[in-house]
Amino acid sequence: MTKQIILTGDRPTGKLHLGHYIGSLMNRVDLQTSYKQYVMIADWQALTDNVANPKKIRDSIFDVLLDYLSVGIDPNQTTIFIQSRIPELAELTMYLLNLVTIARLGRNPTVKEEMRQKGFNDESSSAGFFMYPVSQASDITAFMANLVPVGEDQLPVLELTNEIVRKFNSTYGNVLCEIKPLLSNVPRLPGLNGKDKMSKSLNNCIFLSDDEEVLKQKVMQIYTDPNHIKITDKGSIVGNIVFSYLDAFDKDKNEVAKLKEQYSLGGLGDIKIKNYLFNVLNNLLTPIRNKRKDLINNKDYLYEVINKSSIQAREKVQLNMKKVREAIGLNI
Amino acid sequence: MTKQIILTGDRPTGKLHLGHYIGSLMNRVDLQTSYKQYVMIADWQALTDNVANPKKIRDSIFDVLLDYLSVGIDPNQTTIFIQSRIPELAELTMYLLNLVTIARLGRNPTVKEEMRQKGFNDESSSAGFFMYPVSQASDITAFMANLVPVGEDQLPVLELTNEIVRKFNSTYGNVLCEIKPLLSNVPRLPGLNGKDKMSKSLNNCIFLSDDEEVLKQKVMQIYTDPNHIKITDKGSIVGNIVFSYLDAFDKDKNEVAKLKEQYSLGGLGDIKIKNYLFNVLNNLLTPIRNKRKDLINNKDYLYEVINKSSIQAREKVQLNMKKVREAIGLNI
Repeated sequence: MTKQIILTGDRPTGKLHLGHYIGSLMNRVDLQTSYKQYVMIADWQALTDNVANPKKIRDSIFDVLLDYLSVGIDPNQTTIFIQSRIPELAELTMYLLNLVTIARLGRNPTVKEEMRQKGFNDESSSAGFFMYPVSQASDITAFMANLVPVGEDQLPVLELTNEIVRKFNSTYGNVLCEIKPLLSNVPRLPGLNGKDKMSKSLNNCIFLSDDEEVLKQKVMQIYTDPNHIKITDKGSIVGNIVFSYLDAFDKDKNEVAKLKEQYSLGGLGDIKIKNYLFNVLNNLLTPIRNKRKDLINNKDYLYEVINKSSIQAREKVQLNMKKVREAIGLNI
Repeated sequence: MTKQIILTGDRPTGKLHLGHYIGSLMNRVDLQTSYKQYVMIADWQALTDNVANPKKIRDSIFDVLLDYLSVGIDPNQTTIFIQSRIPELAELTMYLLNLVTIARLGRNPTVKEEMRQKGFNDESSSAGFFMYPVSQASDITAFMANLVPVGEDQLPVLELTNEIVRKFNSTYGNVLCEIKPLLSNVPRLPGLNGKDKMSKSLNNCIFLSDDEEVLKQKVMQIYTDPNHIKITDKGSIVGNIVFSYLDAFDKDKNEVAKLKEQYSLGGLGDIKIKNYLFNVLNNLLTPIRNKRKDLINNKDYLYEVINKSSIQAREKVQLNMKKVREAIGLNI
């Protein structure tokens, strides 16, 4: 049986962090054996809200690639590619833009929320940013993907994609595939400061590439219970980010349960619990860091991976675009 | 000295008519010797408001090509190409969309007026239609065109293009060319019924491909002076479409002046003046019609022309897009 196709990816706007690790990267490492997985480094999409900063995007492409390979995304199983290497994705976007109204795009809650966060309005939001969900629909459908791993907040983008797919198929014939979300049930990882989710732009991250010293410093800054002053004080677990991270990353669930109990009853100091967390995270990150170091000295290999995979991805899209063009039937 | 570059074209949504002939085709025949002229058959653009009717567009591509060659656009001087044969135009559109806001696109008076005419609003207008001026900016700048022949009503589209060009150049470096309009001072040719301009969608056209019989019928329907009933009645020249057409197409200006005088004073019947106009138009259209007949039997030649020219045009765009991509600098 042919494997089902997954499309997923990231905007290359910086190095990846623990939030990505728990939210998507671990999942991709699992999925790559059972599915045909495409992972896109979405440089065009990153440009839609970094229009004047292509250098940041270019530099981040390598960082993201290094992060992918370091955590165990295997380029022999997963096709990692750069969006801008597949111009056919722009062509398909042009066709799909005809199948959705301006009003419908304006109603997309994901984009609305992003615009709010970025302080964008109609006067400041570029047309490119406004219509990136259509470009995303193009990325997904160009691979005839069946599944897209997403969080709850991204469901509206997939809904839009499926609306466009149905419109395309009813107008031009049954060519594109509807997609199903692969919902991740991992809660958003909070940032070091305990507010918001972990996010580059909020500067509250532990990056996969942080060295031991930086990791130690960051762990020591983590928000715990501000009322837990003396070791003997009873401490709160809820909203205590150390325990959020232990829940997420410590495989020894019994030990975490014990620590929580001890912390709640009093008698466990913040330094001690943070040192424990540091060890958990450092054990997780050491092999990732080491792999990164090996890779970073082997640029030829990295270029080979990304170039070869991007060509493979393009060939897949070209085959599908042939079907799309034939269905629309403009060609004389 | 290198020739300046002109980009122009038509949406392939039907055969071309006398309005096109006087408004743009004659001009193109003149311009092709002094300029490097690209004429685009804009099938993607036609699709933006004919989304469910690609067959009409595909069929019209041949009609438009036949019309071009029949009136004397010389494929050895002018590069006639099909828009969808140049996927790089979609790629450039993606980049240009980031350089213009949604609000700015909504203020474009040309698009507003078109939306009004088509009865479109935000709920019914596709995103593709709404942003076609950006796609047009891409077509123009991809050829590094210096000049675009336009009527007054299309000036806002060129203004938008130049705004985008300046934004691109200030963001990424001086790569794209600002364009100047080549303003045509030909007034819009009115339709047979005397209302509106000659337009396919208004069904008031004389097509370049109309045969003698159809031409005769149409000339006999032309709106004249409804109060000019008896031959001896004084007739009005103003709003009399027969004289509008004579002004546009009869090279014998003295004769036209005499006829106008006679008609105004009384003594010149509508049938007589219409027969005169028929002869003028038939003399104009006969060689065009004959050339069309020759060409239509030589499909191999037509395919050769459009395929070869589209490849040439694409090569030109590919060279320019290399510069565009380097300037943006996403490529690792």
